Parts: sequence; C-alpha cells; structure tokens
Amino acid sequence: MIVVKLKPQINVKQISVLINRIEKSGYMPHLSKSDGRTQIGIIGDEQSILNLRLSRIKGVAEIIQTDKPFKLASREYKTSDTHIKVGEITVGGKKIVMMAGPCAVESYEQMLLIARAVKKAGADILRGGAFKPRTSPYSFQGLKQEGLKILAEVSKKTGLPVVTEVVTSANVGLVSRYADILQIGARNMQNYALLEEVGRTRKPVLLKRGMMSTLEELVMAAEYILSQGNSNVMLCERGIRTFEKYTRNTLDISAVPLLKHLSHLPVIVDPSHGTGVRSLVPATALASVAAGADGLIIEVHNNPEQALSDGFQNINIPEFNSLMKDLGPLAKAIKREM
Amino acid sequence: MIVVKLKPQINVKQISVLINRIEKSGYMPHLSKSDGRTQIGIIGDEQSILNLRLSRIKGVAEIIQTDKPFKLASREYKTSDTHIKVGEITVGGKKIVMMAGPCAVESYEQMLLIARAVKKAGADILRGGAFKPRTSPYSFQGLKQEGLKILAEVSKKTGLPVVTEVVTSANVGLVSRYADILQIGARNMQNYALLEEVGRTRKPVLLKRGMMSTLEELVMAAEYILSQGNSNVMLCERGIRTFEKYTRNTLDISAVPLLKHLSHLPVIVDPSHGTGVRSLVPATALASVAAGADGLIIEVHNNPEQALSDGFQNINIPEFNSLMKDLGPLAKAIKREM
Amino acid sequence: MIVVKLKPQINVKQISVLINRIEKSGYMPHLSKSDGRTQIGIIGDEQSILNLRLSRIKGVAEIIQTDKPFKLASREYKTSDTHIKVGEITVGGKKIVMMAGPCAVESYEQMLLIARAVKKAGADILRGGAFKPRTSPYSFQGLKQEGLKILAEVSKKTGLPVVTEVVTSANVGLVSRYADILQIGARNMQNYALLEEVGRTRKPVLLKRGMMSTLEELVMAAEYILSQGNSNVMLCERGIRTFEKYTRNTLDISAVPLLKHLSHLPVIVDPSHGTGVRSLVPATALASVAAGADGLIIEVHNNPEQALSDGFQNINIPEFNSLMKDLGPLAKAIKREM
Amino acid sequence: MIVVKLKPQINVKQISVLINRIEKSGYMPHLSKSDGRTQIGIIGDEQSILNLRLSRIKGVAEIIQTDKPFKLASREYKTSDTHIKVGEITVGGKKIVMMAGPCAVESYEQMLLIARAVKKAGADILRGGAFKPRTSPYSFQGLKQEGLKILAEVSKKTGLPVVTEVVTSANVGLVSRYADILQIGARNMQNYALLEEVGRTRKPVLLKRGMMSTLEELVMAAEYILSQGNSNVMLCERGIRTFEKYTRNTLDISAVPLLKHLSHLPVIVDPSHGTGVRSLVPATALASVAAGADGLIIEVHNNPEQALSDGFQNINIPEFNSLMKDLGPLAKAIKREM
Repeated sequence: MIVVKLKPQINVKQISVLINRIEKSGYMPHLSKSDGRTQIGIIGDEQSILNLRLSRIKGVAEIIQTDKPFKLASREYKTSDTHIKVGEITVGGKKIVMMAGPCAVESYEQMLLIARAVKKAGADILRGGAFKPRTSPYSFQGLKQEGLKILAEVSKKTGLPVVTEVVTSANVGLVSRYADILQIGARNMQNYALLEEVGRTRKPVLLKRGMMSTLEELVMAAEYILSQGNSNVMLCERGIRTFEKYTRNTLDISAVPLLKHLSHLPVIVDPSHGTGVRSLVPATALASVAAGADGLIIEVHNNPEQALSDGFQNINIPEFNSLMKDLGPLAKAIKREM
Repeated sequence: MIVVKLKPQINVKQISVLINRIEKSGYMPHLSKSDGRTQIGIIGDEQSILNLRLSRIKGVAEIIQTDKPFKLASREYKTSDTHIKVGEITVGGKKIVMMAGPCAVESYEQMLLIARAVKKAGADILRGGAFKPRTSPYSFQGLKQEGLKILAEVSKKTGLPVVTEVVTSANVGLVSRYADILQIGARNMQNYALLEEVGRTRKPVLLKRGMMSTLEELVMAAEYILSQGNSNVMLCERGIRTFEKYTRNTLDISAVPLLKHLSHLPVIVDPSHGTGVRSLVPATALASVAAGADGLIIEVHNNPEQALSDGFQNINIPEFNSLMKDLGPLAKAIKREM
Repeated sequence: MIVVKLKPQINVKQISVLINRIEKSGYMPHLSKSDGRTQIGIIGDEQSILNLRLSRIKGVAEIIQTDKPFKLASREYKTSDTHIKVGEITVGGKKIVMMAGPCAVESYEQMLLIARAVKKAGADILRGGAFKPRTSPYSFQGLKQEGLKILAEVSKKTGLPVVTEVVTSANVGLVSRYADILQIGARNMQNYALLEEVGRTRKPVLLKRGMMSTLEELVMAAEYILSQGNSNVMLCERGIRTFEKYTRNTLDISAVPLLKHLSHLPVIVDPSHGTGVRSLVPATALASVAAGADGLIIEVHNNPEQALSDGFQNINIPEFNSLMKDLGPLAKAIKREM
Repeated sequence: MIVVKLKPQINVKQISVLINRIEKSGYMPHLSKSDGRTQIGIIGDEQSILNLRLSRIKGVAEIIQTDKPFKLASREYKTSDTHIKVGEITVGGKKIVMMAGPCAVESYEQMLLIARAVKKAGADILRGGAFKPRTSPYSFQGLKQEGLKILAEVSKKTGLPVVTEVVTSANVGLVSRYADILQIGARNMQNYALLEEVGRTRKPVLLKRGMMSTLEELVMAAEYILSQGNSNVMLCERGIRTFEKYTRNTLDISAVPLLKHLSHLPVIVDPSHGTGVRSLVPATALASVAAGADGLIIEVHNNPEQALSDGFQNINIPEFNSLMKDLGPLAKAIKREM
C-alpha cells in the first residue's frame, strides 16, 4: 500500500485534483484521518503507483510505502482509534458500549420486554437475530423479514439502535433498511461476496471472528469490507474451537489487546458465544472489559430455559442487571466509562 | 423424519397419489432407493406427519420414525452407497475417482497442457479454480468467467468433466453452465444460502469440510443441499486446523471410515489442502485410498514453483504419474479399481 | 466417595475412634472443613465403606455418598474456598497474590536485583526456575541445586517466599528443602509418580494445567495430590494450544470461573506463558483478576532481551511496576485486595 | 552438532585414539553408521569442538557442522533407516511389525489366550500394560510388578517379545528386567527424567507422541533418549487433540511421511488410541501402512465389552484376524512385507 499524507493546509480543490489523478489511473483512493491529519491510501502495484509521482501535486506532504498484510485496517495506516457513530452512541471511544438482547427475535412482546429491561439496566444497543444460520436445516431459522420489522418497531419505541445478522449478500439491502449495525456471523467471516456487499454500504458492521479463524484472517476479512470503502467495522471476538469440553468455545482474551495493537478498529467481545455457558458469562464479561474491549454483546432472555435458540448461554434479566452493576466500578478503575 | 417404505409391487399411479397427499399437506417428499426398495422421506413435525395416516394408502409397506440429527444424508435413511454419475464416470462405486488439476485456472494453454497430462496419467475429472476465495482482498482472485470458459473448452477438447468452485449463490447459475461438478469450498461450508441454491440444481456437488468443522456439521451441511432435492453430494475431507506447525492442516484420516459409516454419500479426500505440503501428498493420497475413500482431488501443476496460487502444495506432472502408478496395485489390494 | 459429616460437638477421642475404624478397614481418611463443619472423606468401594456402619459411631452427623469424577478437589466435597498459608501470605482469600520473577535463576546478583524490585512493586512471592524442562536436551536446563541455593538465600534476604519447579519425583525432597511452594510444570501435569510424591509432602503445590489438558484432567491431577493427603494445591491456568499463530498459547480465561465453580482450590493465572508475548501480559493479567483469579504468576526480568530462557515473554521491571499500579484500583473495584 | 566422518580403512586403534580425545575434552562421542560409513557425532559448543582439530587425527575423512534443532535423531545426521532388533524381529526394515494385545494385563489366562490368538493371526510382538497411567487416581492402575511377571511368562510360552509402559524413572530397571521394549506413554513424552533414564539403558524404546505435542517436540524427545547413548528409539503417532467429537483423538496420518523425512528412526502407528473408536481401527490401520508406517500397535481383547481399561477402542480377535488378512495384500502392493 502507498499512503499519501496530506499537508494540513491542503484545500478541497487540491484534494479533488489528487483524487482525480488516482481514479483515472484505475485505483481507488481511501481517505482517512490519522492523528488529526488527512491521508489517502492506495492499494495496487506499488511501483506503478509510485510512478504517478503524486508527491508533485500541491498539498501532498509525504508518500509512504508499507508492506504489512493488512492495509486499511492496520494500526500503521491509521494510528488513532476509529470511532464509529451508531445513533447517539460512539463505539471505540472512552465509553464501553453494551449490546444486549435475545439470541433470536421471537415476538414483538418478547423483544419489547427485553429491550426495555436491558435499556433500564444501561444497555446502549439492542441485539436480536431475525435470520438465524443454524447447523441443521430443520432448526428454527428465525422470523426473517417479520423479525426485522419487530426489531425496527422496538427500536423506535425504546430509542435503542439495533444490531442484527445478515447472512447472504442478497439480503444486505433488506437488512440495512431495518438495522443500525449489520452483523456478519462467525460462519460467514470468509463469505467474501457478503463482506464486499456490506463494504459497499456505509452502515456500521459488527464482524465476528470465525470459530476457527486466526486473528490475521479476521483482520483480513475486515480489510475486504474496508477495501470497498466502508470503514465502519467493529471486530468481534466470540471464542474459538479447542479440545476443552466444559465450554462450547474458548474465549481468546488475548485477542483484545492483540487486535487493538494490530488495528485501529473497535473491538467488541461476545462472552455468550465465547463460552457457551450461562454461568461463565459475567466473569468473562468483566475480564473482557479489563483486557481493553470497547464493548460487549451479550445474550439476554427473559426466560432462558424457554428460548427458541441457544438458551443455555443466555443470561436472564436480573443477571444482566447484576453484571451492569459490577461493570460500572470496573470501567472506572481502568479509566473507561459505562 | 418419517420414512415411508414402499412395497415392491407399488405402481406409478399409487406413488403419485401418495406424493400428492404429502405435498398437499405442505411437506416435501424425498424419493430414494435403499437396498433396492423405493422409499419416501418426509421431514417436519412428526406427529402431524403420522396423523396423515399414510400407511392406509395402497403400496405403502411400512412407516418408520427416526430421530437422528442427519436425515436424508444418513446411512439409516439409505443403507446402500449413493452413486453419482458425472458424464461417463460413477463416483461412489468400485472405482476410485481421480480429480486433478491446478489450484487456479491461469490460461488456456496451461489448462490444456495439465489436462492432457493428468488424463494420460489416468485422471478422470479436471479440477481448476476460476473463482478463488483468498484471505486477502488484494490477492489473485481467479480469472472468474474467463476461467470458466477455459475450463469448458479444455473439457470439450479432452473429454474430462470439470469440477470448479462456486463462491456465492448469485453465481450458481453461471458456474452450472460451464461445470460438471459444483465445488463448495471449506470457507463456505456453512454459507447456507449457497448450500440451498446448489440444492435447487441437480448438479453433482463436491462439499468440502470447513477447516474448523466437525464431521457432524459437514453432514448437516450436506443435509441442507439434500433437503432442497439435490442428492448428488460428495463429502470432501480436506484437513482441519490444529496446533501442528509443519503442516498447513491436519488431514483427518478417520473422517473417511466415519463418514462412510454415518452417511451413504461418496467420500473424496483432498491431500493437497489436507497437508499443505507437496512432499506429503503422495503418502497421504495412498493412505486415503487405503482408508476407503471413493476418490481423490489433487492439485497438479506443470510448474509448481510458479503457480499463481498455493504452489507449495501442488505436485508436478511426473509426481502425479508416479502417484497414479502406486495407486493401481493398492486399489487392487483392497478390491477397488482405478 | 463417602463423606462422613461430623457433629459440631464431636470430641477428639470420638474422632480418633472413627479414624481408627476407617484405617483398620484399609481406607485413608481425608479430614477437611466445609462451611465450618469438620468432615471425613473416604474413597473406595462405596458399598464396602457403607458396610462399616460408621453412622453408629458417636459424633457422626450424616453419611453422604457422591459420584462426581472429582472427589477431594470438588466444590461438592468442600463448599468453602481453600486458604493456603505460604509464610505470612494466604492464597485463596480476599487478597490477590502476586508471584513474580525471572523464568530461570541465572545468578545470585540477578535474583536479588529482581526480587528487591518486584517486592518494592508489591509482589508477594518470588518465582524462578532452578530445574528447567526444555524441549531440547541441548538447551540451558537451569542451575539446578545451585539455583535452589540462590533462591533460598534471596528469599532469606528479602523475606519473599519462593516458588520453583520440581521436575522428577526423585527431587521432591531436595526442592522441598529450599522452596516454599513446589511447582508442577505443564509438561508434568500427568506425571502421576511426581504428583503422588508431592502429595506425600505437606508443602503448598502450584499445579500448572498441561498445555493441551482439559479442565477435568487438571482437577483430576490435583486429585492425585490430594488423595495422598496434601490439600495445599493451587490450580494454575497457563494457556492451551490452538491454531492461533500470533500467540504461543491461548489463555483460557473461562478456566478461572469454571475452576472456581468445580473446585474449592485457589486459582492462579500465568499470563506470561498464557500468551507467550510480552506486550500482551499486562492486559491479560488485568483480565485474569477481573475474572476472579486468586493470584498471578508473572515472568519479570531486569533485561528481557538477554534472559537465558523465554525472554520474549518476560516483562521488565518498569512494566511490572506499571501493572501493579493498574491492578490496585481494579482489585478494589471487584472487592478484592492487592 | 559436529559430525566426524571416518575413512572406510580406519582401524580400531585409531577410533580409540579419536574417542579418547573427544571424551578427555568433556564431550560424549555418538558412534553411528550412515550409508555404510562410520561417523561420530559430537554435541556442544561448536567452535570449541572445531578447535580440537580432530581432522588431523588419522582415519578422519571429514568434519561437518550442522545446525538443525534435531541432531542425533535427524535424517541429516544419519541418512539410512535405523533398524532395531527385538529378538528375531527387525523394526524399521521391509517388514511391517505388528504389536498387539490388550490395553491392560488383567490375568495370566487372559494374556495367554490373547497372545496365542494374535500370534496365530501373525502378530510379532505382544503389548499389554502393567503400569497404567490413568486420569483418575481412583481408576484401575494396572497389576504393576505382578503384570510384568505375567507378561514375561506369556512371552516365554509363546515366543512373542513384549512391549510395556514404564511410567517413572525409578521403575526403568524393574520394567527392563521383564520387557523387550520400553514404552513411554503420551503423558510422559516430555518427562525428561524418564527419557534420560531409558536413554541410559540399551533397550528398544517405543516413544509415543504426546496428545498435545508437535512433531518437532516428538523428535526432540527422542533426542533426549539418543543423547544418552540409546539409539534404539521407535517414534509412535497416536493421535492428537482437536475439536472433533466423534473420535477421542485425531490420528495425524501426515505424521508418518513427515517423521520418515525428518528422522531415520522407525515410525509406528497406534490406531487404537489414534481414533479411540473400535470400528475405525481397521481402516486407519490400513491407511497407516499405506502412508509408510514401519509397524502398528493395536489393542486386541478377547472380550472388549468387559476390558478393565479402554474397552471401547479394543478390537476383538476375529476383527484382528480379519485386519491381518487385509494387511497382507496391501503391504505387498506397496512392496513391504507382513
């Protein structure tokens, strides 16, 4: 990648000349800010890009060549943390963002009940699956569009923005109409057609790590989205497969500081899937925040024993309340906010 | 699942009455043969299906209720091995089917050269990637439609049927026009939209195990395809992720007898991805056949060092010739044929 | 296992009658306190033990039969947390116990320098390897007895108790003369001869999880030690092997609440081996405490770049100081102490 | 390592001068033959060894410096396959060596019955555990010395040499008196005190891969034994831990060609532990031989359902007979012998 650092005093016209030159040469310019300075990333054959002699254009401060496998997602490309706006909420800043809700949308009444309860406890964003990718074709696959509508209504009623999964590129438009954040599930982390499609929107994306993907692959998957022009990507650690049998997955806590080191993107942790065991959710949620996570996404159900999907890893509403009470002083101790 | 076993003397009219009844009730009937007898599988709420009292219809021998997680793909549902016709070739019978070719289609000349060489050595089917899902968005992603055309032309010239990957449901129609077998890659094993789309065709499908998937999940993924009416599915073991560092993946050899035990579908092994190391391909190919595989899919390149993709795991043409010579006596020793 | 719960008013003579009866019958009585009440665990053929009719002996309140795989180590057997005294320190209580020091003892001067520095920063116990099990027979294997002597001298000089590894049952006596805590390394977690030998001492033991052991196996390994009469066992999570490549091991954070749930024994975390990456140690240390760990064991070196062993995962003294400063408020936030 | 290649015409006196010089300098000379030529390996600080100027001594042909992590176990050090004599049997030659017997020695009658049956079927060596390392301290731990005596008597009666496990360095002498091959179990692969102790004998050793060990670590563990002067080491693949749930372990078939490539030592496969599933043993046994294994070690029991240990992975006698019948033609097809 070639990074073109711009001078502070560059004007709009100069930027437009520069971008024109880049686009005419067949490259896509990626504008971003790093440490308060504007820069343009260009990916492609580096010698050819250098041959464009962009340094001669007015307003260009410096041309930098980097050879990391990650480009737009890398901390080298952008040293300051990325902040993503979701309604009134900023993900990636000082505040720990709490996303909570049931695994699957089951009914309007259920969603409203849970949404109100988690909001009261302090949650910022509502989660709930309308499209549920399931191992068996004969399992409950979600309420689909009906579920999206319920989410949107409950969102309007409570003021909570909504995160929900999109499972195929054909549905990206549909889900975008109802949701505030598009979730890419673990099974689809390397569904590149889907990644590129959400990359073509400007919606915030919650990208879950594949259940057996390396962190390098996760950041490369984010790169697929960023390379299409959408830089609103949150990386989500949700546990990986190991030989351990007490837990469904092994939550990789070191992923949090490692991803913050490799990338400027916000890091969210999902302790519900990360452990797959309800009683382990609170302790691992606290641990994730202590490790530096920018937010949590937690499955909360009013009646976990009767949830249509993954009930064994859902905490109930009093447990969520209690977790929120424990998170407050912890966030303060590490100089973050809830 | 409810299995309706039919009497040997049932006639076409009776079958049509039966199928009508099932379809009117909102279920999809799955016809198949098991041990020479015709049967119909019906998936759904079992009590409701039992309430249809299908046993009263003429020609019905027996109603069986099974509760395995796999249904149409299971050995219980269909005890005899499934044979899949690909042109003149039968996959799943006595003959070990050899699929060979480069990782990616690079040019017409390269494909023709390799196709002729592997055919001469005894290969049955030509492999080659036109759409290449790559970890990095900046890596070579294949020649796409141009690659499909090359495959089809080389197929016509050599008489070798072609297997190639389809990476998104939107392309299933396109790839089906050019290919004889649709490959679902490891990264897409749980891309259910794609599985359902290939399930709606009647094309043979080569379904690769995800690099992070259990065997149960692999058979459940096949179930997604079968549940749409396409029973021409081959299961492919291609190595799983472990902590071992000398190999790219760990080829799970026990998958072969296990899958043959769980399912009636043919089992193919990919020792190229299964090890990721060129020098290990021949020994693990022999092992796979000895373990009971119905076929192999092997990356062969005329010049592995200069391959555009995964060259380090491609064997060259003399190595493929030598492997074919070693496989002959081995197949005979276990009463199979090459 | 049969658990004999004793009445609060039982006297010493009655206990001695009871123990005599058990020993004469060929069983080993395991005395412990659970929720303030004394109890005796007896392991063996349960029917034969029941046939002893111990309930008839005065002072016996109740006879309980349990069938968990873990017995003496289980939370069912002993509901209250086990406290282990190491000099003035109590492991397993409200205080988070900090063990710090170099991977290997290199010299008296180095140990004294590091010991004084970590003590000043607030460490409670000094770690340092005298016997170093190494993958290669040609790598530095530690200073052996010379290293033990250095540890003991530095301990006397600084007042810090010492934890150090014992690698073979033949050396348990030797190491016990110099060390306050006997460490069983990950490679020896299932070296049952060694476990039994440390079980015959009454020294506190730090038992590390094998690098690919399940938590059930770890608790069963502790059971080997407890079954010999030594109940002073601390369980240590130190990372497991996965396919992830950026880290040497994957620290299993859910092990902390899980072990606390399964067992009454204290849980220590080793973020140095748990990640194998120096820059990840502070964040995962904080996470471990937030998850409920009773202590940490951390590799600290005055000059990590020149350490004789595992320098890449050692933090330096200023980094340790900084970590200690961050741990204080965190511990307070979760109502623990440093 | 420094390798001193000797001239063909070197005489005994010259060799003795050379060895004296090496030993006086504080090094241990390792004599071996590679491609028919005698050589001496010396491990230690290479510059100091070079300073001995051994090339000036008569009979020395060449001094070679190598820097692989494996030294004495490496294929570089010794290019020709190592042959190990066990009674009349040679392990590592053209013949596939079959070791068979129960998991644990249960009684004299049982051992004799099984020994006679497996001998009749064509087995070469009898296996049976006298010391059984078990996850639980309360499980059957083997008949210990009594079991060794049974093994020795049955060996005398049937003429089958015996392989059995030694679990602690203190017992190496004891087990050596009764057994023909000392087995190091998976749990002890990195019990270096034990490795060094068997290294000080000249008994053949069957070294099992740890369930959590890389192949590099396995060869390094062999190096511990070789470095003590015992070069009669067989490497044994026995499955590794993965996330797959149908099998107890995942047999790493690529280990066979990889180990043969890295090392000159014979490679044995254990499909019983390698899969942990009785019905998978025959297919994976055939696969192992096809992959190039020099032998197999298989658990056979007259009554698997009633075995005291690991019955679910034991095949019965008719199954062993049938496997032996299938192995014959396979071995011939790959130009080996049974």
